[in-house]
Order: sequence, then C-alpha cells, then structure tokens
Amino acid sequence: MSSKIILGENQFGKAEVRVVKITRDSDRHEIEDLNVTSQLRGDFSAAHLEGDNAHVVPTDTQKNTVYAFAREGIGSPEALLLRLGDHFTSSFDWVSGGRWEVEAYSWDRIQSHGAAHDHSFVRNGQEVRTAVLVRDGETSHLVSGLRDLTVLKTTQSGFVGYPKDKYTTLQETTDRILATDVAARWRFKTGTDFSSFDFNKSYDDVKGLLLEGFTENYSHALQQTLFDMGKKVLEAHSEIDEIKFSMPNKHHFLVDLSPFGLDNPNEVFFAADRPYGLIEATVQREESAPAAIAWSGIAGFC
Amino acid sequence: MSSKIILGENQFGKAEVRVVKITRDSDRHEIEDLNVTSQLRGDFSAAHLEGDNAHVVPTDTQKNTVYAFAREGIGSPEALLLRLGDHFTSSFDWVSGGRWEVEAYSWDRIQSHGAAHDHSFVRNGQEVRTAVLVRDGETSHLVSGLRDLTVLKTTQSGFVGYPKDKYTTLQETTDRILATDVAARWRFKTGTDFSSFDFNKSYDDVKGLLLEGFTENYSHALQQTLFDMGKKVLEAHSEIDEIKFSMPNKHHFLVDLSPFGLDNPNEVFFAADRPYGLIEATVQREESAPAAIAWSGIAGFC
Amino acid sequence: MSSKIILGENQFGKAEVRVVKITRDSDRHEIEDLNVTSQLRGDFSAAHLEGDNAHVVPTDTQKNTVYAFAREGIGSPEALLLRLGDHFTSSFDWVSGGRWEVEAYSWDRIQSHGAAHDHSFVRNGQEVRTAVLVRDGETSHLVSGLRDLTVLKTTQSGFVGYPKDKYTTLQETTDRILATDVAARWRFKTGTDFSSFDFNKSYDDVKGLLLEGFTENYSHALQQTLFDMGKKVLEAHSEIDEIKFSMPNKHHFLVDLSPFGLDNPNEVFFAADRPYGLIEATVQREESAPAAIAWSGIAGFC
Amino acid sequence: MSSKIILGENQFGKAEVRVVKITRDSDRHEIEDLNVTSQLRGDFSAAHLEGDNAHVVPTDTQKNTVYAFAREGIGSPEALLLRLGDHFTSSFDWVSGGRWEVEAYSWDRIQSHGAAHDHSFVRNGQEVRTAVLVRDGETSHLVSGLRDLTVLKTTQSGFVGYPKDKYTTLQETTDRILATDVAARWRFKTGTDFSSFDFNKSYDDVKGLLLEGFTENYSHALQQTLFDMGKKVLEAHSEIDEIKFSMPNKHHFLVDLSPFGLDNPNEVFFAADRPYGLIEATVQREESAPAAIAWSGIAGFC
Repeated sequence: MSSKIILGENQFGKAEVRVVKITRDSDRHEIEDLNVTSQLRGDFSAAHLEGDNAHVVPTDTQKNTVYAFAREGIGSPEALLLRLGDHFTSSFDWVSGGRWEVEAYSWDRIQSHGAAHDHSFVRNGQEVRTAVLVRDGETSHLVSGLRDLTVLKTTQSGFVGYPKDKYTTLQETTDRILATDVAARWRFKTGTDFSSFDFNKSYDDVKGLLLEGFTENYSHALQQTLFDMGKKVLEAHSEIDEIKFSMPNKHHFLVDLSPFGLDNPNEVFFAADRPYGLIEATVQREESAPAAIAWSGIAGFC
Repeated sequence: MSSKIILGENQFGKAEVRVVKITRDSDRHEIEDLNVTSQLRGDFSAAHLEGDNAHVVPTDTQKNTVYAFAREGIGSPEALLLRLGDHFTSSFDWVSGGRWEVEAYSWDRIQSHGAAHDHSFVRNGQEVRTAVLVRDGETSHLVSGLRDLTVLKTTQSGFVGYPKDKYTTLQETTDRILATDVAARWRFKTGTDFSSFDFNKSYDDVKGLLLEGFTENYSHALQQTLFDMGKKVLEAHSEIDEIKFSMPNKHHFLVDLSPFGLDNPNEVFFAADRPYGLIEATVQREESAPAAIAWSGIAGFC
Repeated sequence: MSSKIILGENQFGKAEVRVVKITRDSDRHEIEDLNVTSQLRGDFSAAHLEGDNAHVVPTDTQKNTVYAFAREGIGSPEALLLRLGDHFTSSFDWVSGGRWEVEAYSWDRIQSHGAAHDHSFVRNGQEVRTAVLVRDGETSHLVSGLRDLTVLKTTQSGFVGYPKDKYTTLQETTDRILATDVAARWRFKTGTDFSSFDFNKSYDDVKGLLLEGFTENYSHALQQTLFDMGKKVLEAHSEIDEIKFSMPNKHHFLVDLSPFGLDNPNEVFFAADRPYGLIEATVQREESAPAAIAWSGIAGFC
Repeated sequence: MSSKIILGENQFGKAEVRVVKITRDSDRHEIEDLNVTSQLRGDFSAAHLEGDNAHVVPTDTQKNTVYAFAREGIGSPEALLLRLGDHFTSSFDWVSGGRWEVEAYSWDRIQSHGAAHDHSFVRNGQEVRTAVLVRDGETSHLVSGLRDLTVLKTTQSGFVGYPKDKYTTLQETTDRILATDVAARWRFKTGTDFSSFDFNKSYDDVKGLLLEGFTENYSHALQQTLFDMGKKVLEAHSEIDEIKFSMPNKHHFLVDLSPFGLDNPNEVFFAADRPYGLIEATVQREESAPAAIAWSGIAGFC
C-alpha cells in the first residue's frame, strides 16, 4: 500500500465535433458531413496532479481549430486528420502526439425530374466511413474504415464439421442465411507518402472489394468469408498493411412451421437480436510491422 | 372517491416480430424484411378484472400466425396487414378489431463483377417504410408511410417576416441550410378496393414525389415546404385522402470564424442535435372524412 | 382528383430544450433537470400556403421563453407547463392552444463520508418522469406520467386458460417470471384548480402505488396486474380521472438444461429482446369525460 | 504486392448472452442479471484459410456453457468469468486463451407496505457494472469496472490558466457546473489469488470511493478530479494495480438571459449534447507491470 501512485497513459480533447462543409464554387454544390474527435497526448501531468492547466490546450480550442481548418477545405476525412495532427504536434512543445478520428456520412443528390439536383441531397445511410490518425512523435499511423455495412446472403453458406462436447446442441447445416454488419479498419503502411494520394477513390474501391468478397465462394464459416474479403483488399492495395474485421454473425433461424401443417424450405426466418456470434480477425502482410498503438481504443477489434 | 373504476380502451398483442422471407423460385432470390406488430381489440374485460384468460388469444399465437402467413408469401407490408386483420377479426367472436403495424427494411442487390448478384444483398438504409392497419368492426383504415428519410438543401431556404416579442433574439436570414428527417404517413380513402392495388409501386412513387417536392421552390419556412410535398402526393394519388408529416428542423448553424481571421460565406456549419424545431401538419382533401382512430398511438403526429 | 387540397391539423415549436436549473439560495443546492418541448396551435395557414411567417412565433423564441421562465423557478414539470401554456395563448392572438411536454430526470445527492452532499449529485436512472399539457382555447388537459420503470417478479405469476387455435403452440404455466417496463400516464380531472397542488408529492405517491400494485396478488395475466395498478392509483387520487398504461411483457424463457444433465427449477432464464408482448389499457372512472385531444401524439397508448 | 497474406490476431465467440439467475433457496428470492460475451483465442487458422471447422467450438456451444454454468450459481460477474476461462482453456487443446466479458444490471427490492419485498424487484438504473477476463495461456488479467455513472457538481469547479493561441475563444471561469458519465475500469494485480475474494463487496467499495472522490476538493480541471478519484481507489485497494477512466466533460452552458432583462447567477444552464470534452487517463502504481493485452478491444480507454 505504500507504493507510489502515478499518472499513466492519458489523452484529452473534444469529441464529436459535427461539421458540415458546403462547397459553393458553382451552382452545383458539394457537401461533406463529418463527426470529428481530437485528442492530444503529451505532458499533461501538472493538470492531473496539481490542477495546473498551463499545458491544457482547451478542448474548446481544439473544436475551433477543426472548424477553422474546414474553412480551408476538407477533401477527405484522412486529409483533414493529417493536417490536424501536424498542427497540434507542431504548435505546442508539450504535445508529442495524439489521436484524431472522423466518422463521415454520405449523401446522394436527390433525383428530381430526371436529374441529379444541384443543391438537394438525401442521406445515403448504407454505412458510416471512419478514419483514425494516431501520431506518436514523428510517426503517423493512419487507419481508414467503415462500419454498419449490413450484408446478407440467402444461400451458399453452411456450418459443419465443428467439434462436439457435452454442451453442444447445434445441428449442422449446409444451407443457411449468412448475415453480418461489416466493421472493417485498414491500416496504411507506416511511412507512406500521402501527398498525392486519393483517399476517396481508395475508400470506394476497398468498399467495393469488401462487398464483392462477401458474394464470392461458398462460406464454410463466417471466418472464411472474412479472410476472403480481407485478402482481396490486400491483394489490390499494396499501400495497406493490414485489415481488421469485427463482424457479428446475425442469426436468422428457420421457423418451425410444421405445427401448422406447413413446410419451410428455407423461406421463412426469424431474425434474432441477441445473442449473436462475433467474429474478429486480422488479415495482414507477413512482413508488416506490428502497430498496436494504432488500434488502441477502438472497440471490438482484437 | 366513491366513483366506479372501470376498464377503458385497451388492446394487446405481440410487438416486433422480425420476419425475413426469402423467395427462392429461381436462382435469383428475393428478400422481404419486416418487423410486424399485432394487437387485438375486443372484449377482454374478464382478463383485466378477473384474470380469466378465456378470450386472451396468446401473443405467442399472434406471433406464430405472422410466420405462418409469411410462408404463403408477403407481397407488400400492406397486403400482409390486410390478411392478418381479416384473419383475427373473423377467427374469434370477441375480437372486434385491432391494430397491425409493419416496419419494412429495404435491401439492394450487391454489385459484384459488374452485375447485380443473385442472392447477395446490402441493406439500403435510406429510410424505413411503415404501414398501419386499424380495423374497427368492418371498417378498415390503412396508413402507409416512411420515416428517417434525411434530406438537406444547401440553399434556396430562408426565414424572415416572423413576429418579434421580448423573447426574440433570432436574426432573419435569406440563405440557410434546410435539413430534416422526413416522417410521413398517408391514409388511403376508407372503402378503397385494394384487391388489385400495387402497394410497392405506390410507395415508390410517393417517396419519389416527397423527395422531388423537397427540392422544388424557395422555402420561406419548413411549413411551406411540407405543404408543397404533401400537395404533390395528393394531386398525383387520388386514392390517398390525407398525409401527415412530422419533420424536425435540423439546425445547421453558421460557425463564426471571424475570431480566426476567416470569413464564412455559408460554407462551414455546426450541425446541432438538440433542441430542434419540430413541424407537424396534415395535408388533406377538403372533403375527407375524419379518421382519428387511424392515427391513435402514432407518436408525433398531431 | 379535382378535390380541393387544404391544410389540416398542425402544430410547430421547439423540441427537447434541455434546461438544468440550480437553486443556490443556501449552500445546500437543489437541481432540476428537464427536457422541454413547446408546440403552438392556432392560425398558421399563411405560413403553409404562402410562406408568410407573420404568425410564426419562431421556435427559437419558444426556446428562449423556456429558459427565461426557468430563471423565475421551476417547482415542478407540471407547474412550468401551466405557465408556458398561459403565456403563449395569452401573448399571441392567433395562438389558440398548443402542446407542451416535459421529461424530467431525477438526481440523488451523493453519499460522501456518511452524509448527503450539499452540491454533488448522481443521476438516479430508475425512471423518467413525464408531463404533457394540451391547451385548447380555455380548456387545459394535464397528463402526468413516467416511463422506463423496469420491474420484475420472480414468482406469483402464471398464464393458463387461454383459447387455443391451429396456430397455438404455447404451453400453460403457473409459475413464471413477470417483467415489464412500466409506462403510465395519468390525466387530471379537467377543470381542477392546481393553484396549491403539490405535483412532486403527487408524483412520488403515484409511483409508489404503481410499484406496490405490481407486487400484490398472483398475476393471472399482465392485463390483470395492470388493472390492479391503475385501480390503486384512482382509488387514492380523486383528482385523477384516468390512467393509461403501455407495458411490454418482457419474456424470460426458462432455459432447457436437460441436454447437459441439469434440471432447471425456475432458476436460469434467457431474457429475450424481441418479439415481446405488448399490453395497453386504460383504467378510468366510469363518469370521466373523454379527452382524446389530451392523448393525441403520445406513442403507444391506445 | 507479392507479399504473403496471412491471418493475424483473431478471436470468436458468442456475444451478449442474456442470463437471469433466480436463487430460490427461501421465500426471499435473489436475482442476478447479466449480459455475457465469450470469445476464444487459439489455433483457428484452418477455419479462416480453408473453411475447416474442426477447431471451431460453436458460438452456440459457448452460449450453452454460460447457461449451464449459471445453473451452478453465479456469485459475482468476476467469479463466473474465471470459471468460464478455466473451462474453455482446459477443455480444448487448441484454445490457448480468450476474452470473457460481463455487463451486470442491478435490481433493488420494491418497497411495498413498508418492507422490502421478497420476490419483486425494480431495476436500479444508476450504472452498469462491467468485468473483463483476458486469458493468455496460464496468465489471467481481470478488469472490473462500471460505466454510465452520471455525476454532477453544481459548484467548486473552474477552468483557468490554460494556454491561449489564435484559435482560443473560451473565457476563464472559476465557478461552473462539472458533470460527467464515469466509465472506469480497474485491473487487479496479475497473479492475485481470488479463491476467497469478495468481488461484490470490492465493487461496492470502489464505486463508493469514486463517488466520494468526485465530491472532494475544488476541481481545477476534470483531469485533476479524475486523478483524485483513481488515487482514492488505489490507496484503499492494494489488490488493484491500475485504474483507467474515460470521462466526457458534459458541458452545461450558462444561458445568456440579459436580452430578456434577467440576470443569471449560475442558475439556468443549457445541457449540451455534442461536442463534449473527453478526458481519458490511467492512474497506476509506479511498479505495476504493463498489461496491454488486458485492455485491447475496450473502447475509449487509451
């Protein structure tokens, strides 16, 4: 009990700064819709131990900085994060790093009288795009991603050959519904030069590959499908070193209609809420350097 | 205090029966994804007053019935509701009516290798489709709808000319962002013969008109835009008697960047959560008969 | 199709104004924590039809009014609503009524070193208190209530004697868990003089009676327990004319442990999410006048 | 691009197994209400790479095991986790570790006719108790915690002396509301013998210390209050090596009532939703060994 009690790892900042940026260079407006979190790391021990705030860059200032930077244009979630990281680590001696995060929401132009409208939009709602930058001194770790991309296959999925013990009651099946909410995060190679990188194009391509990977091949287990999806991304994108997934197995149980004199040839299902299977895995290049710091604080990614 | 205490209006049933129906007539599967609630009205006083359940059709039975009916095909949310209403009111003498409700979730085929896939789907997520049937004896009230259709105009909206009192601090503006989550419910004419009505086509058309109505005209107030949207629907769909809206005014506040030496010509906005404006109104045919019973229990529609 | 399209019922205002009022008359501070919604009814057709806002009391002004009124003291949710209703209907000729609503969050003093602290609080979290005032000209309807009061009995509940049909598979039981989230709303007699009424004391007493009513008697059905709860309230509170309930039957299913060689004498349960039973009913005085307008727009109360 | 693509870290299991355990040894029943997640780590590469499930202990089996173990009694969330960890790592050769997690919900006895009822309960709702066990071979890391413990001080909090830059607009204040939702996780010393440890008593004591720590001292920054809270826990509990916090600074903004001719001496506040400050820090013993593996996958703890 006489051991010394000290401050360990810490960070602080402003969470969920909602910024909507309209680009009005022409009558055809563009919209960018972000939720930005900024957190600083460095020497903040005086604030914790003595209530001395001389190093505490106010979270309100961090928020203001996000809005000021948005005025100069956003471009992509990742580009904004890189600029924020440079700014904070270069502006304050005692700020040695930090973590900056974006969730981005996608909008489509409304189709009106046969054309895509100039300044009216409808929220897309298919998935949320994510990005995280972790700065540790001069080293940057950049992780792009998405969540809540809900996909489902009505066939070409089964689950057999698993071990049985005294607690096993599950029946094998060779034809079931496979459904999941894809949450995926992919980490770029440390040291990549992003000066002319098109993050939006890269994102769209990775999302397309994930969807395509989900459709291909008979799925013997969600694990196998997950690996296939990740492999497609790494094969096509040499700038990505690893991709992590957290995917629920959203159970769709075949309803027993026999008490009512009806058959049910894989047509009527009960979509269950809880419990659900949960499959988490990393697909990576063999030579990729570990980067645990890039993943700290992201829920549900082992 | 000596007044007699009695049972008033009541209903009971099973809520949120999640049913996924796959149609597998060919290799090109179809998916229907519903959340169904069934509630019965009638003579249930003995259960309340004496704990006598002779009239209490179990909520579990109502659930089973939903699944059994799904086996025979769904077709549209509204068609399923009409069949459920007929079944329950004709099967039990003491069931004189009820309320049946559906939320429907939309799925798109995944684009894979340049084609829409046969049996792999991605949840659309743009809005939730709704339907409510209220049966009162032989009379049916059918209300279709949608919610969470999030739309935004970057210009062509203002708010001026409002009354000022001692509590007014709002500044007038002739150019602002207008954003809302459309929740709309439209009631079909009582007595309509639905035997050959295409509910899915009707739904798609109404949704398209609502979106189009949102884009058209300069908006002097969300109230005006709401009315325009409803009027378009009623003009094009003679089978609809009234349409009700509940629409938040999702405030996007222009950020003051002048402390940082920056202008902000309607480019950078803070998207606020709470409080929000809330606009609710009905657009109806002058001669439409009131149908309060159709609307009871729907949140947020005056 | 040539029928005239008109504006029907409508209202507008500011929703979810979050106000926290601290009373600092002494070192022992008091806290009131509310979420207030204000909606006006009256003659707003010009805004809808012509975009003329001369009658549109800005929702921002309604918000400001809530804060200004809080400065003079809150006292109880109901007292604040009555003052807001008087203000808006008397300040603007064209405002003939409206709907004002409060959700109130309860805080306990933190126990610190054996005493209730003067100015440190912990959110209680047991239930949310609600209140709704509907003004229609000179008539006021006041409805107090609560939601999310989660209760559970581990025994003294069963369900037998229900009708069976071809879709019935449920087994009868004389000992089950009964669990629900109580949502209740009670309407005061129209015309009650509230000038010296203690709403906070009344609320605490009604909540206590609801809880006590839940514990008493063997429950043959949730309907019976609901009626017992309501009857207790009306018997004790002559100023209340009716009370409505919306209560899910939160199913707790006995887990079949026999495959693992274990019995399960009502000890291990699976708490299910969806679907759930849903029981809604009104308990009222026989002579109470109907007041449908008081209930319009409240979700899930038939 | 020719780099080899391999499987990295992975785990799988069943999430959110809702188990309610009633102890009925006497008429005075006891209730335990848990949400359990089980995830296994080990050699699962064949499933990912080849769809060979010979090592994939079904998530359904993991669920069954939770229910079977609950039959033998729960005792505390931590005790159940330790038993689950022992079971899975000892039952399957290829399972080398895993992660097991509990959320526990607290119930109070209903007060009825002046006494605490034998078998009727009301959900407490104040906070959610958490526990995580990470097994890595023979090493166990056990982390207890809580979340959503919402606390507020009406005074004795300020924020001054922070650095100013070109993006700073915040005004200093020496009297403000300090409010947060406490999320805290405390890790027990690795190697602790828990055979006769009373986890429930320990939890209640830590929670009490956190609350007490929040009330004490003037708060110069939420960081300082956080450190005080953690220090109290470590000083009183020698078996705990570190405690991590993630606490939002829930802003309560003083409303400017001067336009309405009113003063506002820290009485009327607007409780904001987003953005919010976010303060995360670790308080630890100087000699505690790092245990990053214990924290992986927990959201929002740096």
